[in-house]
Amino acid sequence: MNLPKHVTIKEVGPRDGLQNEKEEIKTEDKIEWINQLSRTGLSYIEITSFVHPKWIPQLKDAIDVAKSIKREKGLTYAALVPNMKGLEGALEADVDEVSIFMSASESHNKKNINKSIDETYPILKEVVDEAKGSNKTVRGYLSTVFGCPYDGAVDEQQVIDICKRLFDMGIDELSLGDTIGVANPIQVRNFLSLIENEFPKDQIALHFHDTRGMALANTLVSLEKGYYMFDGSVGGLGGCPYAKGASGNVATDDLVYMLHDMGIETGIKLDHLLKAGDFIQQKINNPLPSKQMNIFQKTS
Amino acid sequence: MNLPKHVTIKEVGPRDGLQNEKEEIKTEDKIEWINQLSRTGLSYIEITSFVHPKWIPQLKDAIDVAKSIKREKGLTYAALVPNMKGLEGALEADVDEVSIFMSASESHNKKNINKSIDETYPILKEVVDEAKGSNKTVRGYLSTVFGCPYDGAVDEQQVIDICKRLFDMGIDELSLGDTIGVANPIQVRNFLSLIENEFPKDQIALHFHDTRGMALANTLVSLEKGYYMFDGSVGGLGGCPYAKGASGNVATDDLVYMLHDMGIETGIKLDHLLKAGDFIQQKINNPLPSKQMNIFQKTS
Repeated sequence: MNLPKHVTIKEVGPRDGLQNEKEEIKTEDKIEWINQLSRTGLSYIEITSFVHPKWIPQLKDAIDVAKSIKREKGLTYAALVPNMKGLEGALEADVDEVSIFMSASESHNKKNINKSIDETYPILKEVVDEAKGSNKTVRGYLSTVFGCPYDGAVDEQQVIDICKRLFDMGIDELSLGDTIGVANPIQVRNFLSLIENEFPKDQIALHFHDTRGMALANTLVSLEKGYYMFDGSVGGLGGCPYAKGASGNVATDDLVYMLHDMGIETGIKLDHLLKAGDFIQQKINNPLPSKQMNIFQKTS
Repeated sequence: MNLPKHVTIKEVGPRDGLQNEKEEIKTEDKIEWINQLSRTGLSYIEITSFVHPKWIPQLKDAIDVAKSIKREKGLTYAALVPNMKGLEGALEADVDEVSIFMSASESHNKKNINKSIDETYPILKEVVDEAKGSNKTVRGYLSTVFGCPYDGAVDEQQVIDICKRLFDMGIDELSLGDTIGVANPIQVRNFLSLIENEFPKDQIALHFHDTRGMALANTLVSLEKGYYMFDGSVGGLGGCPYAKGASGNVATDDLVYMLHDMGIETGIKLDHLLKAGDFIQQKINNPLPSKQMNIFQKTS
């Protein structure tokens, strides 16, 4: 196996994780937690989302969190923004990077953004232009790339067309999401074979969910295809919004354990990561679902 | 990827799963459960262990279970036997196949069997001879192939030597166990590359534990190497004896889901399997850890 020697992990727990937790977390605890994550060796943390509190009340303190965390040198702090209003907040808080998002399937896009895919482009374009004009890098998230909870299978050519539209807008990186955790390793390998000559590998991240236990197998085939950027959520925080109680984001710690065990560097200290996982686990008052947190709990 | 079109799954839940559950299960419930499993399309079930009740009280009703289940045609019913005494019971119950076991690491073998590896061979040899003389097929289990909870790393050449000794005894099949779930995909691929010219693939099964979430990734690399026999425990029943509460055997249902989704046949009906998982889940009075059981719970 000819695998990358170094992998970059993008921690999305404080945004993608917390937005799916029902327990209300105090702003000061979020700040302390992100500060802990900043000292694990992570090079990227998505710290919050500047979305209207009506939609995601869990992250209504976005501006306070973004302004109050202690920023470590060399670490990129990003925030999700759905529109110009959200971008204002992100710029006011001076995050390093903003993330925009849409879905690869019509029904999921409509449920999530209340717009058709075609109606979504101009909204995102405005945000990207303004963000780039303010010297921010922009990350795109494309959801339901490997399957949709409403539409089922998603046409691969449609996905590629949307990716192109997003890159044409000027985004710097695109994170391809298996939003409901249905991708299997053959599907992932086939899809990556389709796109590897379309988009540079240093602009594509894989965002796997572990809902059906295949996230690490999917990571493995992605590594074999030469991809080296992966999203994760500490401890698997957040769960699956489509099957409450089931797993969502692949756990950063499970990802890090496997990569290190295979001799691939991440720059992350697993023990520090697990301690940060334990901190937020106590705040949400629920055991986190990851394997590593599970072992940490039983043996520490 | 050039993968096998058909995979044979060997269900070890009634033995390997139940022996690690603390809840006492009524004999009649075990029988009903195995009868349910027999109707899922499984071709192999390890139904119990004829080990002294002092060591595994959970399976003290081995003879009753083995004699009372309804045996389906074409399905192999196996039982674990540690020694001649155990074999007597298995022969009396007329199981189709007996399984013997030892470890690839000295410390684990000593803790488990109370003998050194060298002292173990003659005991197993006697069992194999007698079983073969009684026209039974014999399966070997080799534990701690990819790592030992006491000795750490296990020398690959030592593992291969033990495999050879076991095949020389006349066993029909050998199941290679990642007893503590530490194997990573590179390690598995390297090890399989070492043994593929030593032993025929139709005599080697892989027995992965999902303690660190890598079981399906390890299954994938095994499939890529052309191996097509895997052990599993419905719902992940049993957990990890070395980190209570953590996962043990890979869940048969998670395995089946991934294989079917990749277009690989198993002959197993996943919905029937999940119903059988739900039955035993209620008896052990604890949610089973598998992803599929989790989704089944949340959506049914």
